Amino acid sequence: MASIPVSHDVAVVVGLGLIGGSLASAMRASRYATEIRGFDLEPATRSQALLTGLVDVIAPTLPEALANAGLVVIAVPTLAVERVLDAVREHAPHNVVITDVASVKGTVLDAARRVFGTPPPGLVPGHPIAGSEQSGVAAARPDLFRGHRVILTPHSHSAPEALACVRHLWEQAGASVFCMDAAEHDRVLALTSHLPHMLAFTLVNVLSKQDASEDIFRFAAGGFRDFTRIASSDPVMWRDIALANRAALLDAIDLYAEGLASLRTVIESTNAEALHGAFLAARDARGRYLATLAAVSSSPGEGA
Amino acid sequence: MASIPVSHDVAVVVGLGLIGGSLASAMRASRYATEIRGFDLEPATRSQALLTGLVDVIAPTLPEALANAGLVVIAVPTLAVERVLDAVREHAPHNVVITDVASVKGTVLDAARRVFGTPPPGLVPGHPIAGSEQSGVAAARPDLFRGHRVILTPHSHSAPEALACVRHLWEQAGASVFCMDAAEHDRVLALTSHLPHMLAFTLVNVLSKQDASEDIFRFAAGGFRDFTRIASSDPVMWRDIALANRAALLDAIDLYAEGLASLRTVIESTNAEALHGAFLAARDARGRYLATLAAVSSSPGEGA
Repeated sequence: MASIPVSHDVAVVVGLGLIGGSLASAMRASRYATEIRGFDLEPATRSQALLTGLVDVIAPTLPEALANAGLVVIAVPTLAVERVLDAVREHAPHNVVITDVASVKGTVLDAARRVFGTPPPGLVPGHPIAGSEQSGVAAARPDLFRGHRVILTPHSHSAPEALACVRHLWEQAGASVFCMDAAEHDRVLALTSHLPHMLAFTLVNVLSKQDASEDIFRFAAGGFRDFTRIASSDPVMWRDIALANRAALLDAIDLYAEGLASLRTVIESTNAEALHGAFLAARDARGRYLATLAAVSSSPGEGA
Repeated sequence: MASIPVSHDVAVVVGLGLIGGSLASAMRASRYATEIRGFDLEPATRSQALLTGLVDVIAPTLPEALANAGLVVIAVPTLAVERVLDAVREHAPHNVVITDVASVKGTVLDAARRVFGTPPPGLVPGHPIAGSEQSGVAAARPDLFRGHRVILTPHSHSAPEALACVRHLWEQAGASVFCMDAAEHDRVLALTSHLPHMLAFTLVNVLSKQDASEDIFRFAAGGFRDFTRIASSDPVMWRDIALANRAALLDAIDLYAEGLASLRTVIESTNAEALHGAFLAARDARGRYLATLAAVSSSPGEGA
């Protein structure tokens, strides 16, 4: 690739929900580009994004949004990424830098292969490990990513200039950027995010199918509320994630089922020492995890 | 039983941790009895309970604590209840009202059968559905139970006067009191509390056994933190609970494993509609649970 365009001219965010809207407003706050342009399929969302100052300019159509873009951020649901990539291929400059925020990265590369033949050098898929109980443009805020981690999954032909451009995008929003292989990303997220969601959905469904399930829920305490919070997540988004990351998620479920079966054996055999050891190991491991979590909030962005 | 003693004369709390200390201070605040007397095996805990005004009087030994007691609250770890019941039989008035706060109720009745032959009419086992991240006497506070539920599990020979006395004990502390069979309690708590703890312990352990587990934990987000919060619970307490409620817990694990296997099948078959239905059902059921949770905080205590 001869040269990456000056992404600091026109940067476009397609999809102005919580993530897209927040990133646009962070870009605008840091003057990441001369023009922060937004587009969303919903007219009401477009109006609100402009009115609340998330973007400099709203494009009335996707082709108009993509014209003369230096950078495009695709912030639409996982399974809608391909349609936007199609439009990018058709309407954006051929050397545009492209990134996205989808929770599964293998399917983004698959979509790029279908659309472009080989994924273009300007494409650097990404995934911010951040979110909120809330969703939608009204919840967008420029500091959503501050102190959070972002994983970039450049492919083998991603241009170093494109990677630098996308890295800078997230660092100006206050995030720490890490790079890994798309397959590794999908395996890690299957374990830390997609699996826990499946476990929480399953627990709530198992309990609600019991006789007198209202009595059962009535006596659930605060621990249960926290444990199942993620079972209140958007069913459509999670359907798409489960399908998009199907293979890695099935592996994660199998690993988990084995772990649960082992614990069951220990309980059944009333092995007090092994039980204590298992619970102690879990508490210690979670303590190490909390320490890591605390560390990122206070450390500057670092590459990997 | 001819008559229940005036429990409002001397009320004794054995075990002055978070639950026992909080209940003692609530009893003292409402002048539930003329004398609120406490005992704990730890001398430092005894001193602190007296110093911070959780109790009126501290007994130096368990026999002295139990002498002329009208009511005894046993607030020690689940598997230590039997030893205290032994002391009650030996040192307390024969018609004393006895309750406890253990998380598993079947084992308390089993212990009472071993100690007394048949569980005495004065015994009304109980379980406050409350807790805190913290533990120990220093965390005790009189309003810990306010707006929370307490389950009492009277046995077939529990005296109505003893039940009324224990019900009043919890209502003066601001809790809502419900009654159910001990076996039903243990089944319900296995599903709503003990199972979720096992699931959280298992998730943390499965992840920490993966290659490069530090990298995995590094990219876990806030949802994971909430989901695994209960995996930081006291390993000794949970070892005891898992053993004390072994049969009901094994049933709960089996139910859960079936539910997870069903979801796995739906994912494997890429059945988008069934997936969406499952996640939607879970979100709706959790919404109903949250509504119940909100209801108790604003409703007065009610029997069942």
